[in-house]
Amino acid sequence: MTKTATDYNNELPIGVFDSGVGGLTVLKALMRRLPGERFLYLGDCARLPYGTKSPQTVTRYALQAASVLASRGVKLMVIACNTASAIGLDAVRAAHPGIPVVGVVEPGAQAACKASRSGRIAVIATESTIRGRAYHRAITAIRPDAQVDGHACSLFVSLAEEGWHTGEIAEAVAMRYLDPIFNDAHAPDTLVLGCTHFPLLKQAIGNVINPEAAIVDSAGTTAQAVHGLVHDLGMGATEGHGGIRFLTTDDAARFARTGQGFLGRSIPEDDVRLVDL
Amino acid sequence: MTKTATDYNNELPIGVFDSGVGGLTVLKALMRRLPGERFLYLGDCARLPYGTKSPQTVTRYALQAASVLASRGVKLMVIACNTASAIGLDAVRAAHPGIPVVGVVEPGAQAACKASRSGRIAVIATESTIRGRAYHRAITAIRPDAQVDGHACSLFVSLAEEGWHTGEIAEAVAMRYLDPIFNDAHAPDTLVLGCTHFPLLKQAIGNVINPEAAIVDSAGTTAQAVHGLVHDLGMGATEGHGGIRFLTTDDAARFARTGQGFLGRSIPEDDVRLVDL
Repeated sequence: MTKTATDYNNELPIGVFDSGVGGLTVLKALMRRLPGERFLYLGDCARLPYGTKSPQTVTRYALQAASVLASRGVKLMVIACNTASAIGLDAVRAAHPGIPVVGVVEPGAQAACKASRSGRIAVIATESTIRGRAYHRAITAIRPDAQVDGHACSLFVSLAEEGWHTGEIAEAVAMRYLDPIFNDAHAPDTLVLGCTHFPLLKQAIGNVINPEAAIVDSAGTTAQAVHGLVHDLGMGATEGHGGIRFLTTDDAARFARTGQGFLGRSIPEDDVRLVDL
Repeated sequence: MTKTATDYNNELPIGVFDSGVGGLTVLKALMRRLPGERFLYLGDCARLPYGTKSPQTVTRYALQAASVLASRGVKLMVIACNTASAIGLDAVRAAHPGIPVVGVVEPGAQAACKASRSGRIAVIATESTIRGRAYHRAITAIRPDAQVDGHACSLFVSLAEEGWHTGEIAEAVAMRYLDPIFNDAHAPDTLVLGCTHFPLLKQAIGNVINPEAAIVDSAGTTAQAVHGLVHDLGMGATEGHGGIRFLTTDDAARFARTGQGFLGRSIPEDDVRLVDL
């Protein structure tokens, strides 16, 4: 059953979920692109990170998070977590056939295919995202001749959370992960940041790779995809006041404190509610 | 109600739980000290790390883990996770009055007090352990004049898990965390490794701090405390065959693979069972 525009309640918020605060980089891009929309953001901070967990566990967590958003009423869902998008997107779509669901992998793959001339594309992400090969599938579906190499860069997550975004250690870690990839005659010309934490390290990453290589992150392209979908389905909010509410599975004060660096604006603690999954 | 020796079933295993595989460093010390005992180890890998989570969440997780061990039958419980020991020990003891429960904080504090001459003791651990000030309380309870300083070193956890135990990056991170502490006229003479992951980085840590400072980790001292308790309560196994079984909340194959570096011996995948908390 395909829904028509009139089936949606346009005044409901757009739901966004992530394993923690990293998805706030996606929310930031969504708010910029869709300023009249309301948003409901869920960060499953109590169980983060998803990136080192098994596909079964990640899928179960994604389904639980999606159920919380659906039960509170959302008109569209964005899976802002790369790991959950890579592994759980189909399961979430199947569980909520009445709600359009957008992940971050497909928009990121589209942007990478557009940016690359040579078709040699490197993807860096968490261990689970890489093992699941979702970027590989999404990129080669658009560009079958592409050569996609995936590399897990787990330490980038901790560096982003510790706030060590630039400087000697960030560059040494970036060098250790990326130099073997880019210091090669057949080096990729495009690097996909396949984790919402990685854009915070963009400068350190840019300093150690070939300066001509394109760096693609999926926040902006996901926002563009959601904007297009809202338009195509005629589900834009008409009241247009905007606004955000936050849900977290862990400490609300900590969410507000650590989240603001990712969202790029302050988060009043009163706007954050604790939920149990 | 205090139990007497005859109340315990001496042939039951000793239960050990941790947020993941780090507690296997404690299990290793226990097996060395108590070779005739059976052990049941639970790693809550699906929800790790505990170290960045709120006290309420950590306590809830510790109670759930303890219930799983109790329901399977254990004669004694060891909380091998510093964060869970620091925050959840009292709650676990209250929930299981019939089972002696040992944490890793008190034995570590005792060892630190014994090692320190000046009474200036630094504790490095995860954010939650430091915020909870459990080492501070345990050390000053033994030695009221001690000056205890706690420092969160979150990146050490990722370095240990990534296997980057030595070398340039490990030392640069150790330098960044520890140089401000030890490069001081009133520097501590003892450093407590208040996280089960940190012993893997002992060499890198030792290379950047004052070579005369003592480095204390709680695995060995916890095993000594458990050995004493088993003896005092007359609860030693009489059959004495030993043996270990493992439970994990995430992928069994991954547990077996990542766990062996911490345990110092191979873990047959068949000995690992998946449980849901």
